[in-house]
Amino acid sequence: MNEAAKGAWSELETAPDPTLLELFAGDTDRVELLSGRIDWDGEDGKAGILFDWSKTHLTQGLLSGFETLAEAMDFVGKRSALLGGEVVNLTEGRAAEHTAQRGIGADASVEEAGALHRRMAMLVDAIHDGALGPVKHLIHVGIGGSALGPALAVDALTRDLAKVDVHIVSNIDGLALEQAFAACDPAATMIAVASKTFTTIETMTNAESAIQWLERAGIDDPYGRVVALTASPEKAVEWGVDETRVLPFGESVGGRYSLWSSIGFPVAVAIGTEEFGQFLAGARAVDEHFRDHDGAVNLPLRAAFADQYYTRLKGCQTRAVFAYDERLALLPDYLQQLEMESNGKRVTADGELVDSPTAPITWGGVGTDAQHAVFQLLHQGTHLVPVDFIASIAPGDELDPAHHRILLTNCFAQGAALIAGGNMGANGNDPARAFPGNRPSATMLCDDIDPATLGALIAFHEHRTFANAVLMGINPFDQFGVELGKQMAGRIDAGGERFDASTEELLAAAGLG
Amino acid sequence: MNEAAKGAWSELETAPDPTLLELFAGDTDRVELLSGRIDWDGEDGKAGILFDWSKTHLTQGLLSGFETLAEAMDFVGKRSALLGGEVVNLTEGRAAEHTAQRGIGADASVEEAGALHRRMAMLVDAIHDGALGPVKHLIHVGIGGSALGPALAVDALTRDLAKVDVHIVSNIDGLALEQAFAACDPAATMIAVASKTFTTIETMTNAESAIQWLERAGIDDPYGRVVALTASPEKAVEWGVDETRVLPFGESVGGRYSLWSSIGFPVAVAIGTEEFGQFLAGARAVDEHFRDHDGAVNLPLRAAFADQYYTRLKGCQTRAVFAYDERLALLPDYLQQLEMESNGKRVTADGELVDSPTAPITWGGVGTDAQHAVFQLLHQGTHLVPVDFIASIAPGDELDPAHHRILLTNCFAQGAALIAGGNMGANGNDPARAFPGNRPSATMLCDDIDPATLGALIAFHEHRTFANAVLMGINPFDQFGVELGKQMAGRIDAGGERFDASTEELLAAAGLG
Repeated sequence: MNEAAKGAWSELETAPDPTLLELFAGDTDRVELLSGRIDWDGEDGKAGILFDWSKTHLTQGLLSGFETLAEAMDFVGKRSALLGGEVVNLTEGRAAEHTAQRGIGADASVEEAGALHRRMAMLVDAIHDGALGPVKHLIHVGIGGSALGPALAVDALTRDLAKVDVHIVSNIDGLALEQAFAACDPAATMIAVASKTFTTIETMTNAESAIQWLERAGIDDPYGRVVALTASPEKAVEWGVDETRVLPFGESVGGRYSLWSSIGFPVAVAIGTEEFGQFLAGARAVDEHFRDHDGAVNLPLRAAFADQYYTRLKGCQTRAVFAYDERLALLPDYLQQLEMESNGKRVTADGELVDSPTAPITWGGVGTDAQHAVFQLLHQGTHLVPVDFIASIAPGDELDPAHHRILLTNCFAQGAALIAGGNMGANGNDPARAFPGNRPSATMLCDDIDPATLGALIAFHEHRTFANAVLMGINPFDQFGVELGKQMAGRIDAGGERFDASTEELLAAAGLG
Repeated sequence: MNEAAKGAWSELETAPDPTLLELFAGDTDRVELLSGRIDWDGEDGKAGILFDWSKTHLTQGLLSGFETLAEAMDFVGKRSALLGGEVVNLTEGRAAEHTAQRGIGADASVEEAGALHRRMAMLVDAIHDGALGPVKHLIHVGIGGSALGPALAVDALTRDLAKVDVHIVSNIDGLALEQAFAACDPAATMIAVASKTFTTIETMTNAESAIQWLERAGIDDPYGRVVALTASPEKAVEWGVDETRVLPFGESVGGRYSLWSSIGFPVAVAIGTEEFGQFLAGARAVDEHFRDHDGAVNLPLRAAFADQYYTRLKGCQTRAVFAYDERLALLPDYLQQLEMESNGKRVTADGELVDSPTAPITWGGVGTDAQHAVFQLLHQGTHLVPVDFIASIAPGDELDPAHHRILLTNCFAQGAALIAGGNMGANGNDPARAFPGNRPSATMLCDDIDPATLGALIAFHEHRTFANAVLMGINPFDQFGVELGKQMAGRIDAGGERFDASTEELLAAAGLG
């Protein structure tokens, strides 16, 4: 870390530490200072998301201190490099051009992404028009970045009705694939094989088994049912996919940032190409906000300020995300990968060991369910956990409005209770019924959950993750940490080598020794 | 904390701190010392689970030190009180008699549990025999402890075929219930309403909406389709459930320990009463092990020793659980509630503020999926995370055996890689490709996943949680931490009160102000 950044941290470490109640009492403009919206043109006028960070410990003083840190870490320069398609992933010598998929980036990359989207849209429209025969089901095979995004988007956006019934299969455990088979008619099923390298062992094993399933069902040309989503089109063709059904994406689109590319094919199949365009447009609105705002009014950057405050200055090893909406049930899982795989690092971009904690563990769930499971610890445990709440003003259901009213009331009540604390004992001093309060949260309140909003929510978190990486000086775009386990599995499978005594025992117990 | 316990901690704090590789190199009996099985009589002879804790930093010295701590905290006496049905939940003046449901406890409680189980079995058998008319679907409405257990058990044990199609609905978000409606034929659907108090707002709102759905579908006597699972039978009758379809359970069975009681009704409906008996028997095998073994050979107690080591001596704020089996996909969620709601406390059983961290945050997921999402941080992040792996020797699928072999090989390889570390750079000194190693894990290797095994796994974690509570001196059986948020939601709903400025803003934005 450079001297200017060290100086900024020294200032931040000595900042005063009032409670949240004191902060609210002392500044009537606090909500105005720390809330902001990102909007876009929706079907019925402006639509967007309110980002309220006023229940965190951020103050004007801390914002200024973090702005100094951002300057010391060259946030503006790093952001330009990202959005300009420069090589920001130094260890792999690549750009990180997910925003080009949304129309923000180097001209050539934006143009290429547009051409690939049009190629994908033609295939998707052809499927919807019946040009490929009856397609009722799509089994999408992929893992990690090739699965979590499609699973989230399909789950969030097809609660009413999907144009095609989509099953996302990721696990090598054959049960996952069998369950998809049981729900699909092989005569009306397409298979999407999603793998950036087209070599991922889980995905290729599942793809082979899916082909065998089609064969056993008497399908004449099983490979004719396969669409490949990959940055290695030649490998897909080699494997057996017809070139016309290979949907490539660029090498500079990282796995956990690939939902915007042809990895989004199952989403477009489920919701339609126009709606997929809205999904990209929502993300683009956030890209433009992120590009055009400097300092703490940049909402993803402001969120990163709070993240760094809790991780580094308050020792928080985790951050929790609770979606108060069934449609966003898979968002915490998606954010886990985005944040932990991007910033769960121990060296800086220069190869130095970091001198402070990097990404916290992202965990969470769905409200109100989580209130009855884990909120005990949030309110009365010993670990400080900054919490994000995400909710939608418009309901997703058509039942009695009491359902949605109780849902939202509970979401807001949790944030209020975490701040306020109190004692619920009969005489006000029962230690087991005491709540210390002063526990922070942020709230993202969406007008509705639709393709644009989901795109905006994900893009917000991509930029928040990037901003955190810049503030820490690390490269969020590689993931070498997953390689050793893979290599070890290969060595075990190859046989002839000795491992630690525990691993030997387990292999023997499982009949694999 | 008493003086003897303080002394034990002082000893533990000064214990030597070798690496895991050094521990394996220095002691060829390490696996024998730190692995053990719990077995029971299965259909084809002995069946059970191997618990391998040798990849943690536990040593003979640490085990002895923790045994001293356990003695200082009167582990044996506390265990007797638990299993003897004494009042161990002091703040609520109740016993905690979940083991009585499995046949281990005070005679009267065991007898009462048996009678209630027989009552439940008669109803379940009657449903399976068609005595209640056609029942193809069961919508089970409950939340927290009334939902997570049924959801886990139904998901784990009915991958092949369920006797009745069961949907667990917990969230107040109406989408959850609508999704269940869409999958069920109202003319062949029963409703189970599960609530210990029969007042939980989410559950009663969902129950009302389920009744309305039946009414709208022209069902003559919708309340006649309802079964109540509750410790407040009189409230259920008052609400409209016929007394013959109320399945009570005892007040001394806590919500997050209630799956063994009539809260298990949807499980018995899905798998059959005989299989539900095997589920109880598996748990009982662990109860007997826990009752009959003293010191570190008691496997749940040994696990608690490791938990305390990492939480208190190594500052770990989390513990991760990865199920390498699709059937156990919901186990991490279940354990989150069990562990965090039980031990996420800040006062001791005597009402003193604790002087050290209590329950860590339990998080996790399913392998191999998680390898492609969050293992980057486990291998190369800055936060130490003790990991539990859970796998099954017998596969759950009938696809090519390669699927299950790759699944298990990856599970074991991850544990081996976390210990070993290394550098995967071309010249062996690339900082971005360096793995520090020395990261701990434990492995639970099941012979198979069946009702008995699931019962044993859950009971193991119940006792591990209790043992942790004893070592920390806290009461794991109350949950006052959930009350303030509920009360705050009620105050918001009642109106006429002012809250913090952020909460006011959110209420206004959502049209609830």
